[in-house]
Amino acid sequence: MTTGAVDLNADLGEGFGVWTLGDDDAMLDIVTSANVACGFHAGDPATLRRVCRSAVERGVQIGAQVSYRDLAGFGRRFIDVSTEDLIADVMYQIGALSALASAAGSSVAYVKPHGALYNSIVTNRQQAHAVAEAVHAVDPGLPVLGLAGSVFFTAAKDVGLTTVAEAFADRAYRPDGQLVSRRERNAVLHDVDEIADRVLTMVTTGRVTAVDGSTIPITVESVCVHGDSPGAVQIATAVRKRLIAEGVAVRAFR
Amino acid sequence: MTTGAVDLNADLGEGFGVWTLGDDDAMLDIVTSANVACGFHAGDPATLRRVCRSAVERGVQIGAQVSYRDLAGFGRRFIDVSTEDLIADVMYQIGALSALASAAGSSVAYVKPHGALYNSIVTNRQQAHAVAEAVHAVDPGLPVLGLAGSVFFTAAKDVGLTTVAEAFADRAYRPDGQLVSRRERNAVLHDVDEIADRVLTMVTTGRVTAVDGSTIPITVESVCVHGDSPGAVQIATAVRKRLIAEGVAVRAFR
Amino acid sequence: MTTGAVDLNADLGEGFGVWTLGDDDAMLDIVTSANVACGFHAGDPATLRRVCRSAVERGVQIGAQVSYRDLAGFGRRFIDVSTEDLIADVMYQIGALSALASAAGSSVAYVKPHGALYNSIVTNRQQAHAVAEAVHAVDPGLPVLGLAGSVFFTAAKDVGLTTVAEAFADRAYRPDGQLVSRRERNAVLHDVDEIADRVLTMVTTGRVTAVDGSTIPITVESVCVHGDSPGAVQIATAVRKRLIAEGVAVRAFR
Amino acid sequence: MTTGAVDLNADLGEGFGVWTLGDDDAMLDIVTSANVACGFHAGDPATLRRVCRSAVERGVQIGAQVSYRDLAGFGRRFIDVSTEDLIADVMYQIGALSALASAAGSSVAYVKPHGALYNSIVTNRQQAHAVAEAVHAVDPGLPVLGLAGSVFFTAAKDVGLTTVAEAFADRAYRPDGQLVSRRERNAVLHDVDEIADRVLTMVTTGRVTAVDGSTIPITVESVCVHGDSPGAVQIATAVRKRLIAEGVAVRAFR
Repeated sequence: MTTGAVDLNADLGEGFGVWTLGDDDAMLDIVTSANVACGFHAGDPATLRRVCRSAVERGVQIGAQVSYRDLAGFGRRFIDVSTEDLIADVMYQIGALSALASAAGSSVAYVKPHGALYNSIVTNRQQAHAVAEAVHAVDPGLPVLGLAGSVFFTAAKDVGLTTVAEAFADRAYRPDGQLVSRRERNAVLHDVDEIADRVLTMVTTGRVTAVDGSTIPITVESVCVHGDSPGAVQIATAVRKRLIAEGVAVRAFR
Repeated sequence: MTTGAVDLNADLGEGFGVWTLGDDDAMLDIVTSANVACGFHAGDPATLRRVCRSAVERGVQIGAQVSYRDLAGFGRRFIDVSTEDLIADVMYQIGALSALASAAGSSVAYVKPHGALYNSIVTNRQQAHAVAEAVHAVDPGLPVLGLAGSVFFTAAKDVGLTTVAEAFADRAYRPDGQLVSRRERNAVLHDVDEIADRVLTMVTTGRVTAVDGSTIPITVESVCVHGDSPGAVQIATAVRKRLIAEGVAVRAFR
Repeated sequence: MTTGAVDLNADLGEGFGVWTLGDDDAMLDIVTSANVACGFHAGDPATLRRVCRSAVERGVQIGAQVSYRDLAGFGRRFIDVSTEDLIADVMYQIGALSALASAAGSSVAYVKPHGALYNSIVTNRQQAHAVAEAVHAVDPGLPVLGLAGSVFFTAAKDVGLTTVAEAFADRAYRPDGQLVSRRERNAVLHDVDEIADRVLTMVTTGRVTAVDGSTIPITVESVCVHGDSPGAVQIATAVRKRLIAEGVAVRAFR
Repeated sequence: MTTGAVDLNADLGEGFGVWTLGDDDAMLDIVTSANVACGFHAGDPATLRRVCRSAVERGVQIGAQVSYRDLAGFGRRFIDVSTEDLIADVMYQIGALSALASAAGSSVAYVKPHGALYNSIVTNRQQAHAVAEAVHAVDPGLPVLGLAGSVFFTAAKDVGLTTVAEAFADRAYRPDGQLVSRRERNAVLHDVDEIADRVLTMVTTGRVTAVDGSTIPITVESVCVHGDSPGAVQIATAVRKRLIAEGVAVRAFR
């Protein structure tokens, strides 16, 4: 029996007004960290307030899921934002969510970039530094959740931020440790048992099997699960159960 | 020579992206309280960050100028927002500005509703309570700036908030102490010297001459001046000079 | 067996970006008129383009479902818009949808106001005239779909527009012919068979039973059905089947 | 004395709600083609309606200045929009402006992409084809205004659109005919007389002096002038006067 611990995170609060996305309450019973939208790609304030309250009721820690300003594109489109605008946009979003998290009896415990911004700052130095600078300006003690080896993590460490490396429960990895692009076949895993096994192996051994069959090292302080479909909730549940069954504590990373 | 003191406040940060409105830096040399927009009627994050920094450099205190979500209408149109949405919208805005104010070395020191929301909650009980509850939820120690005698002030006091009563430098008053509607002739004063005299009288005597020639009592803890035109900056300057020349200290209300 | 004919209309295209609402294709197999959102309360352009194409494939006529500018409130909140802005907002929306409808091989065949605007112009003279003037300015030949007896219909007739009176399949009526407010119990009917019976009676007799049990006259050139839940699609299907089974032709009103 | 003719175009209608930009009426007295914003980077419907009316009063033809959806960035930031979304976004904008132009007694006579979209489709094949396809879908007879030699012009010709080549009055050219980037010194010319001379030479000789002193060929069916500053209006006036003084007719390109 293993004795480790790992965090489970998921994107929540991603409705907007009348529109909903995923089952926030179901996911809050599974995860230990909630990446709560901040209004720029999704998340009207009333939704965010409800999610913060539900998270606090369940002891789930709250993170700010910051994004490009792009409701129409759900933050999934790269935008060539200036450094000055990106810094201020990220600070604004963290602050907005902070007020709602604090009033719910908690606080923003970390920051995770969303969608195209997440992908961009794996390699885009300008935007990576802007996000890191923004987080640092709001609170130098805020950890950032992201991809180990990314330019963003380098930028974050440069300004003294703590980084928390996440792995994806249902995504295939290339031999170099990067994610297989969603445009490729086999980018996403669908089998519930296979995914639960895989996450268990990643967490307990620090290794994962890449698409070419090779075994590669992977740093996993948190596992990202999805919740925007019934099947996704089922997968997240299986991952959690499997970890616990094998003696891995599922708890927030701080 | 009088020995009182009064605060001067103005709306700032009301550009959006490429569009500017008023001369923020000129006004920050005049006022002691800056009602900074929060992004819902005006104010992109980069503009707000700049205004917060300029305010801190000049020792001007920062207030959150919260609004209906209405960029196209500049927050000047009444919107029949639900209590739940209005509470969350106001909390979100205060939080967003707080992050920028704090990073600039200050903090949000008060809240002032903007435009149609300001006008609505003079009489609209539901919205007045929502705004008061939102401010209280974010920080029960935050004062609110508004109109003495308004339903908003009653709601604010009900939840334990401190209220700060403001008078308008360039607006005509009715005999009952309410503002003459902008739809009426003579609603707005334009003569620089007359306005400066009038403000001095209001501040030092607690009285003002209403449109019908009667003298009425007025509570003035802060004087609202405008800055969105060259003439407005000139008026604000004259008001400040006149007050100081007559021995009234111009300083933030806390 | 009756020999009349009636139109069935439903609100469609009400997703936005990643968010969906209702099953547009299912409803397009049922209705003869599609009230397609125009982007102000819902409806990103790509969604609208798809709906227009689907409507044309099925021979369903396209109407412009115009709204206040309010994505966050889904157009369900009254906004005190100026006449000038409301005229231009409505013209803009009709034009936008027209380009997509025309490219799909059809055209905007009518205009139906949405949500809070629909409700407002039952009695609000200023906004009713603005909407009527806007429709007329775009095309004096465009009919408007709405409530018989509304100020909107008076305004529309004043400028020479054709009006098409609709009844609601699942809403209770007051003895004066107005809808029972959604805030009341019994405002909405839920029983599939009862609704189908009721619509049949309204269409074939021009009468409906009000909440107090009295029978009142009702003008029905089109019946509004909803499609934003599985139950709603079932109701719409039952209404259509019942009408056809009893010999009422279900076809677009022009 | 020369006997040619040329069009003068400028960006107009670029305010939003309370915010204004440039002096639309002053520019409408100078130009023969108005690139009117369509609401995605600027231009609330009421502003657009006013500009269309003013343009019609002065006999200035109206073009649709289509953009990425980006009010906060004024359409100046590249966005990696999908083909499907970009096609629909462009169609939507053209349609919206068409309703306002038609009601004013004119029609949309051409399409000119704005800002970052304009720059993107000089080389970005995917977006260039999307814009061309969108224009064609709305009206295959609509000309597009842009840069000769761009991928956009190739895409436009591929679908059968007419292209109208524009030159910039106040921009420096590289020896290869491309514009010197605004990030370079000397990208923008400021001397009124020099600019007027330069435009006259471009129009009458089909040649312009590049930054390296070489003379290069340039196709000029329309000259783009700016109007967003007092100096810009002065330059535009000078260009127009100079052309007319030298016998060049200033008139719309169709």
